[in-house]
Amino acid sequence: MSEPVKVEVGLGERAYDILIGPGLLGRAGAEIAARLPGARVAVVTDENVAAAQLPVLQAGLEAGGVSSTVITVPPGEKTKSFSHLETVVDGILAAKLERRDAVIAFGGGVVGDLTGFAAGIARRGMPFVQVPTSLLAQVDSSVGGKTGINSPRGKNLVGVFHQPKLVLADTEALDTLPVREFRAGYAEVAKYGLIDRPDFFAWLEKNWQAVFAGGAARIEAIAEACRAKADVVARDEFETGDRALLNLGHTFGHALEAAVQYDGARLVHGEGVAIGMALAHRFSTRMNLASPDDAARVEAHLKAVGLPWRMADVPGGLPDAEALLGFIAQDKKVSRGTLTFILTHGVGKSFVARDVPASEVLSFLKENHPG
Amino acid sequence: MSEPVKVEVGLGERAYDILIGPGLLGRAGAEIAARLPGARVAVVTDENVAAAQLPVLQAGLEAGGVSSTVITVPPGEKTKSFSHLETVVDGILAAKLERRDAVIAFGGGVVGDLTGFAAGIARRGMPFVQVPTSLLAQVDSSVGGKTGINSPRGKNLVGVFHQPKLVLADTEALDTLPVREFRAGYAEVAKYGLIDRPDFFAWLEKNWQAVFAGGAARIEAIAEACRAKADVVARDEFETGDRALLNLGHTFGHALEAAVQYDGARLVHGEGVAIGMALAHRFSTRMNLASPDDAARVEAHLKAVGLPWRMADVPGGLPDAEALLGFIAQDKKVSRGTLTFILTHGVGKSFVARDVPASEVLSFLKENHPG
Repeated sequence: MSEPVKVEVGLGERAYDILIGPGLLGRAGAEIAARLPGARVAVVTDENVAAAQLPVLQAGLEAGGVSSTVITVPPGEKTKSFSHLETVVDGILAAKLERRDAVIAFGGGVVGDLTGFAAGIARRGMPFVQVPTSLLAQVDSSVGGKTGINSPRGKNLVGVFHQPKLVLADTEALDTLPVREFRAGYAEVAKYGLIDRPDFFAWLEKNWQAVFAGGAARIEAIAEACRAKADVVARDEFETGDRALLNLGHTFGHALEAAVQYDGARLVHGEGVAIGMALAHRFSTRMNLASPDDAARVEAHLKAVGLPWRMADVPGGLPDAEALLGFIAQDKKVSRGTLTFILTHGVGKSFVARDVPASEVLSFLKENHPG
Repeated sequence: MSEPVKVEVGLGERAYDILIGPGLLGRAGAEIAARLPGARVAVVTDENVAAAQLPVLQAGLEAGGVSSTVITVPPGEKTKSFSHLETVVDGILAAKLERRDAVIAFGGGVVGDLTGFAAGIARRGMPFVQVPTSLLAQVDSSVGGKTGINSPRGKNLVGVFHQPKLVLADTEALDTLPVREFRAGYAEVAKYGLIDRPDFFAWLEKNWQAVFAGGAARIEAIAEACRAKADVVARDEFETGDRALLNLGHTFGHALEAAVQYDGARLVHGEGVAIGMALAHRFSTRMNLASPDDAARVEAHLKAVGLPWRMADVPGGLPDAEALLGFIAQDKKVSRGTLTFILTHGVGKSFVARDVPASEVLSFLKENHPG
């Protein structure tokens, strides 16, 4: 088997590797034992991932001499709650794991965020390993140490920064993903090109079909996305500055997700980000920051891959512009009453814009509202 | 009013001051505003402290132009639970505090541990300030960033390391403490002398009555205890080595607390630590590590101040030696089946002893058992 691609997240004594390639579930035990000698592990996963892929991971752990127990949680966003956090922490403690043992997050973003948080607080912090099984988790949530759960007051409002010791992104694990989910994850891949990697975006415009098909192009796309994220995280681990760039498309996107009450049948997170990125580029055009050609180029690419790119693409209609602005103003990126957006000077030239006038946003939403 | 004593905890970009002296509640607003300009605060406290001292703190915050809301929890160890953690976090978010605002822990160790944990996870970490109102909290739990709650699997098994931005130890706040509680806190003061400050222990032998009476000697004792703890924490923030020295007396002590089922009417934490310290010295004598004179000196001092110092001092009797060893073996400081103790070569010469034979501990417990 060919060696996986390795991307290092350069965080000094918290530095770790992301390994990307096929067959990594099967060598999970060897990779973990090499980094955490003698560690026992608890695998946290959801019922769907457990049914489809747990035996492969367990065999891989056993082959490397790593003994494991399993903690299973229900699939879905509702699992990111205090109640499931308590369950997972109790499972870790019940397995009598010590601070030299490890917790494995095996699943998508929900499992990764919940498990990372549980590992961050059990015995005041235990080593953990991310084994993401969705494209979104492989290129985004599994890297960078943000963990957490939701609060009735908003998403991801409770958590810790807790870096994993290792990320194993098995590209074969993506073969069973529904195409809609893969496509939604692809929006976050394209995002890195739009933030500050124009050559990568141009490469994706030419090669996206190969990325969807699998094989070398998919591995390269995931690796480049991880390199991009690792760079940003190494510059700003605790999100006091540049890391906010990763929110490109997320302010508009979160407002749309909230507007459909997080109904995944209508809009999943990556789709909201896709529309949000297109809107961020179009709004930048309106603010005379970027050329309309760039906005058109982004819209064309999202459309080509089959992603939604405008508000009219959200099925079932949307509340009016005032209501959408209300969702934006509730977003946690609002600081002391001013609106913060990630805007752009063009493809690969995004920046953090503070003090964006709410009146301009409202006019823009009215002009682009489908209803 | 005289200036408070200042002790700095040297943790680089996480460094902070401990201020010790009378009247600090009244200047809390000024001290906080100087360090966190523009911050709003949520004060977390328990019903007893709120009734006795909250108006003084609130007036002090107002005088410094700091606006505040209050979150009240029940007093007692049971409050260190997931359920109260969720309540406090929700209160912080409901007050719409942002990452530049702050959370104040106003109370004893329970409030400090719970509040620090809540501040550590709300919005993935918010600034917090410790305003300890018990001697135990002023010299131990408010300094060093260990926060947490209990689990059915054991005490303090869930939490984070989250350093405060400031500790305000108002020595006047101790005037209303019941003498038994002050005495229990004093055990942790004496502990620092026994760990590595023999001159401090000798000073306490001479001056303990003045410390109990209040005034300059009390301030000096608290300041020296904080300096001692700050030194250890600066050397080993995340307890991978030397910080374990702070557990002097705690392994035997926790076993006794567990043996009385944490019934504070029979034994409070500081009293368990007092007996534990005496036993650690006596056990060190038995292991030919220290002179019997040192053990006798420790016992004499604890007895002089009115603290329990032997197992026979626990009212209501104890389970047999085998059962006590069982409680010790369940302690979290057990690593891969070996017993770790803090032992000593004499007053002020403690060290971390790994691989202590359980058989020796059992014989020692039998010899010293009152039953």
